[in-house]
Amino acid sequence: MRLLEERILKDGKVRAGGVLKVDSFLNHQMDVNLFMELARQWYEAFGADNVTKILTIEASGIGLACVAGLVFGCPAVFAKKTKTKNIDGDLYKTQVESFTHGTVYDVIVSRDYIRPEDRVLIIDDFLANGAALEGLCDLVSQAGATVVGAGIAVEKCFQPGGERLRKKGLRVESLARIKAMHDDGTLEFAD
Amino acid sequence: MRLLEERILKDGKVRAGGVLKVDSFLNHQMDVNLFMELARQWYEAFGADNVTKILTIEASGIGLACVAGLVFGCPAVFAKKTKTKNIDGDLYKTQVESFTHGTVYDVIVSRDYIRPEDRVLIIDDFLANGAALEGLCDLVSQAGATVVGAGIAVEKCFQPGGERLRKKGLRVESLARIKAMHDDGTLEFAD
Repeated sequence: MRLLEERILKDGKVRAGGVLKVDSFLNHQMDVNLFMELARQWYEAFGADNVTKILTIEASGIGLACVAGLVFGCPAVFAKKTKTKNIDGDLYKTQVESFTHGTVYDVIVSRDYIRPEDRVLIIDDFLANGAALEGLCDLVSQAGATVVGAGIAVEKCFQPGGERLRKKGLRVESLARIKAMHDDGTLEFAD
Repeated sequence: MRLLEERILKDGKVRAGGVLKVDSFLNHQMDVNLFMELARQWYEAFGADNVTKILTIEASGIGLACVAGLVFGCPAVFAKKTKTKNIDGDLYKTQVESFTHGTVYDVIVSRDYIRPEDRVLIIDDFLANGAALEGLCDLVSQAGATVVGAGIAVEKCFQPGGERLRKKGLRVESLARIKAMHDDGTLEFAD
């Protein structure tokens, strides 16, 4: 996906410790026209797979998931990071470790919105250690539904999540794949 | 806005204590085609106001804000509820009290994404006590930018936020306006 890689080169910022800041267009300010192009790329990959539901995790996946829902013609669901008063009824729950924030948190989704017959496409902005994506796969599995695959915007290929999940059989389509990030602020994409 | 009111009557659930559950279509599972219709209604109200930026607050406003950004042809920004490691540089910050969760939290937005020349439309799923909306207005004010108005999905008119903010001169366009919610699970819309 040249478009997103070009945008990262233009507007992304490499910070110490393997941090890539893309908050000018992806996860704080959101370039929704870019989101539409990304969603169309995911549709090229998964459009024939009869996706019935988009699943993401709050917060920065929600915008991408909604635009993907428009393109795939199905609802989007976001898993929540804590149990709030306003969700009742039965939940699926899993735990996710955030390496960014150094915490472990519960992730929940209502049983009403992932059904056994659903064919779920998981969407997220980043794939690095894979903890969030693995947690979302677990929620879908608990529901007895099918994970069609995962559409990721930016994959950090130098972290282990993508390789581990592909080895487990998950189909992962990442639209920008970063092979290395350097202390001088440059980065390299995977082929 | 008949469409959203009809959907609330069909799929919303009234719970004790003035809680309206709309998580089957608005803030957990998201009916993105409905979102597109809501965004078009906001465009009817604010389309002539040269909106340059949509602003919302995580998490449940993000989907609506992105779809509104597609309709208005401008980026969407979501204010964040805590300071995370991955945001650096200067921030605007305000405090918001959550009546749902019984807490006060910091809300931040990067100075880079609300500029003095911006004409900002604030989008959110609910307006009740108005604390979140007031906080977002404060962030825009700190930036020296202009609040064009607020596009709200569901306003609880029996709570004081809408009246207070309109009296301050804020233009608020709510697409479903609930006058009363009753213990028998029924509700009434304002005229």
